[in-house]
Amino acid sequence: MERRVQQFTLSDVAALVEGELQGNPDKVINALATLESAKDCQLSFLSNSRYIHQLATTKATAVLVKRDFAVDAPCDCIIVDDPYLAYAKLSCCFDWREPLTAGVAPSATVDKTAYIHPSAIVSDGVRIGKNTHVAAGAYLGPNCVVANDCLIGENTRLEASVTLYSNVQLGERNIIHAGAVIGADGFGFAPSKQGWQKICQLGGVRIGDDVEVGAGTTIDRGALDHTVIGNGVKLDNLIQIAHNVQIGEETAIAGCTAVAGSTRIGRRCTIAGQSGITGHLSLADNTHVTAMTLVSKSISSPGQTVSSGTGQEAHRQWKRNVVRFRQLDEMAKRIQALEHKLEQFSTEG
Amino acid sequence: MERRVQQFTLSDVAALVEGELQGNPDKVINALATLESAKDCQLSFLSNSRYIHQLATTKATAVLVKRDFAVDAPCDCIIVDDPYLAYAKLSCCFDWREPLTAGVAPSATVDKTAYIHPSAIVSDGVRIGKNTHVAAGAYLGPNCVVANDCLIGENTRLEASVTLYSNVQLGERNIIHAGAVIGADGFGFAPSKQGWQKICQLGGVRIGDDVEVGAGTTIDRGALDHTVIGNGVKLDNLIQIAHNVQIGEETAIAGCTAVAGSTRIGRRCTIAGQSGITGHLSLADNTHVTAMTLVSKSISSPGQTVSSGTGQEAHRQWKRNVVRFRQLDEMAKRIQALEHKLEQFSTEG
Amino acid sequence: MERRVQQFTLSDVAALVEGELQGNPDKVINALATLESAKDCQLSFLSNSRYIHQLATTKATAVLVKRDFAVDAPCDCIIVDDPYLAYAKLSCCFDWREPLTAGVAPSATVDKTAYIHPSAIVSDGVRIGKNTHVAAGAYLGPNCVVANDCLIGENTRLEASVTLYSNVQLGERNIIHAGAVIGADGFGFAPSKQGWQKICQLGGVRIGDDVEVGAGTTIDRGALDHTVIGNGVKLDNLIQIAHNVQIGEETAIAGCTAVAGSTRIGRRCTIAGQSGITGHLSLADNTHVTAMTLVSKSISSPGQTVSSGTGQEAHRQWKRNVVRFRQLDEMAKRIQALEHKLEQFSTEG
Repeated sequence: MERRVQQFTLSDVAALVEGELQGNPDKVINALATLESAKDCQLSFLSNSRYIHQLATTKATAVLVKRDFAVDAPCDCIIVDDPYLAYAKLSCCFDWREPLTAGVAPSATVDKTAYIHPSAIVSDGVRIGKNTHVAAGAYLGPNCVVANDCLIGENTRLEASVTLYSNVQLGERNIIHAGAVIGADGFGFAPSKQGWQKICQLGGVRIGDDVEVGAGTTIDRGALDHTVIGNGVKLDNLIQIAHNVQIGEETAIAGCTAVAGSTRIGRRCTIAGQSGITGHLSLADNTHVTAMTLVSKSISSPGQTVSSGTGQEAHRQWKRNVVRFRQLDEMAKRIQALEHKLEQFSTEG
Repeated sequence: MERRVQQFTLSDVAALVEGELQGNPDKVINALATLESAKDCQLSFLSNSRYIHQLATTKATAVLVKRDFAVDAPCDCIIVDDPYLAYAKLSCCFDWREPLTAGVAPSATVDKTAYIHPSAIVSDGVRIGKNTHVAAGAYLGPNCVVANDCLIGENTRLEASVTLYSNVQLGERNIIHAGAVIGADGFGFAPSKQGWQKICQLGGVRIGDDVEVGAGTTIDRGALDHTVIGNGVKLDNLIQIAHNVQIGEETAIAGCTAVAGSTRIGRRCTIAGQSGITGHLSLADNTHVTAMTLVSKSISSPGQTVSSGTGQEAHRQWKRNVVRFRQLDEMAKRIQALEHKLEQFSTEG
Repeated sequence: MERRVQQFTLSDVAALVEGELQGNPDKVINALATLESAKDCQLSFLSNSRYIHQLATTKATAVLVKRDFAVDAPCDCIIVDDPYLAYAKLSCCFDWREPLTAGVAPSATVDKTAYIHPSAIVSDGVRIGKNTHVAAGAYLGPNCVVANDCLIGENTRLEASVTLYSNVQLGERNIIHAGAVIGADGFGFAPSKQGWQKICQLGGVRIGDDVEVGAGTTIDRGALDHTVIGNGVKLDNLIQIAHNVQIGEETAIAGCTAVAGSTRIGRRCTIAGQSGITGHLSLADNTHVTAMTLVSKSISSPGQTVSSGTGQEAHRQWKRNVVRFRQLDEMAKRIQALEHKLEQFSTEG
């Protein structure tokens, strides 16, 4: 069960993160670790001054730090402007994803009209439909299903058991995690006397470059136009993106959030987990939504942070307050009445 | 990457939707589009008078409209009572799902005791267990897994990688979207001194006709009796339906909603997204639940709309109000005290 | 479509649950049922005194009851201290999961460096990566994907289409339901001028013994250290467990809950459905969280129950109260002002 070991000298590391080494350039590190758990031959980092007390006692061979904190380190330092970003970049040198041999596994089934670039990897049990194009360096993990008329861009990675319905186009360098479903029918039905009449969903899905889609996340196809996910968008696990949603570049959405149909989310927004955004809204760029917020109105000016809900309380106290919540309108009127009465007193008195 | 093109004359379209054509019966349309994006040879519709300003400038070849709006159209019209319903019906003429050849793919594995109707389609990588019956015209998409003792009704469609556990019966004309899991164990455990004792879930799942189940949605098997989904029920993506839930005919539930065990939901209810319905409740027919509502009490009279939660606010203001929420019970008492005091003043004064 | 029939005499049943039989030891039962639906040859139970009125009219052949209620039963009784626990234990004698023949299905693909115990079952379409170890009695359902360097403990069961990423270790006797994804990348990105820089997730997932993971549930791999799920933890469907979360023994979490990164949940906690727990928190043992609660602060003393949100209301009334919620801080100040004024009156008067 041993995993591959990557090794770097501190001078390698300093070069990779464009940092300044204070220490022995020939020392070797073979893993990243937190300050607290780091051992010999491991590299750690201090990005949050809250953890500065852990710096003094770290057993790491070296640390990534800002210049001001280097003096506190008990070990070699690589000085950088942004230790967290430096750690992020280095993390990719230690990735567990191993290089694979290009080609189509014998147990995969690929329609004869599909194009698979010779450098692409199509794993066991993958099913590829008609006219689908798999570009250079793309990876399709085991048991993925890609229907007709899809495009998998260069170096895009589908982990295991991803489903793409027909007419889904992914840009370059995407990572789509296991179990994600892209292009299922939007939830569209017209009421009729005979019950719900299905509205066939005739649009597709268009996803930009450098997008990450979490495990089990679902992105529905558009009703007439496409559902559109911009470059650099990051979606966590178990998110529902309804038909005709548009998400702007570099927006990040945390797990278990639902975005209803035709809503447009701007660029560089952050939406915390378990949030819900109702349909046909427009959210300006740089909107921030806190956890478990219901967004039910458009937000037109950029840079706002919105919230809803109530904070956590001891259950017993909460029960009392919840009862009062139902009386709020009445309470407000009683306050008004009191103010009025007191006003009268003042006047009369 | 070209998709099939369907073509219809306006007289065809008028016949299909039982509408009255005002225009050239021989003109051809080959796609549906919104008023705003429609181009030549495309058909659009006006169902919401909010969009009437888009009608005047549409580039569509023809539009579906109510009689009153025909005069405003810059193009040929097909007059119908319900343009949205007419659009819905027509959408199915443009569906991207292509007719497939019946039969069992060589890479599928079918238990020898299972029955597959000759007109059914069993795609690559499908696994079918013992005594399962796949009826005429049914479609099992790539990599679906259907366990023992299941029934897939006529013309029911399982998209890719759907899982049916044993003893799940689906009616006719269902659409089950990719990644849905039907018949997993209900969440049942009895506390004991040795920890949680699993309660094996001995019931199955019974699903009616014309049901749609969204991508990634999970419907658990019953503990003793079955979990039951009525005819015409529509479930969006990533919904959790717990064991022994019963959902009445034509009820529609939006994405990311959870329904806890043994709850009975009536007919023609609509449950908006991200809602939660606790266990052992009974909801009357035609109940409507707004987005992100927690329903924790039964609703006995039909036709009610229920809500919970608070509305979206600027984060800073919300923080202040949330603090006050925790003081609500105390505030209510202070109001009462004020009323009492003022009453005394009035009497004394 | 007939399922296997298990048969037990009442003396068998009494022995299995260590109960005292009042009745005919040779009578045979072949199914479990609720008091209301039980028929001849079926065994039922009364665990909740609310249902005592159903006892008198049950058609069951025998019932599991506490001693005090035996007198009210119209049929044979098996007296036990905890009828619900007795029912739970018996349910497993009627499980629909049939014994399967050990071995690797021909359509499975197993890397040559993987080890599969001869008593393990590897179903059709399973994909197993390098250095993965499948222990005795383990079951991998159809179309599961298990990547490199994984461990599947003894008698652990993966239902259909489960995905394990590399470096995921499962203990013994786990049940992982269909579509669950364990070990996908945690949601980690560092902001940079070029957009989000991915943080490769270098930790794995460690899961103890007797754990159950629901359908579609996702458990992310750790960023540096592992994500850790303790023995006896029960996770319902569509739950999101983020990177580096730690969950203590015997904790149970209901469907559609999200736990954000690095949060530590204690032992024997119960978290109700649709809840959200933000990141980097610590919850003491025996914490209880009610449905749809947002937990955003650590809980340091064990045994507390916490809640948030507002209760369900008629929509019209709710709308009025929601408006008032936004005025809460102002209302509180007005109450204070009234109190102050009245104080002055009292003093002056």
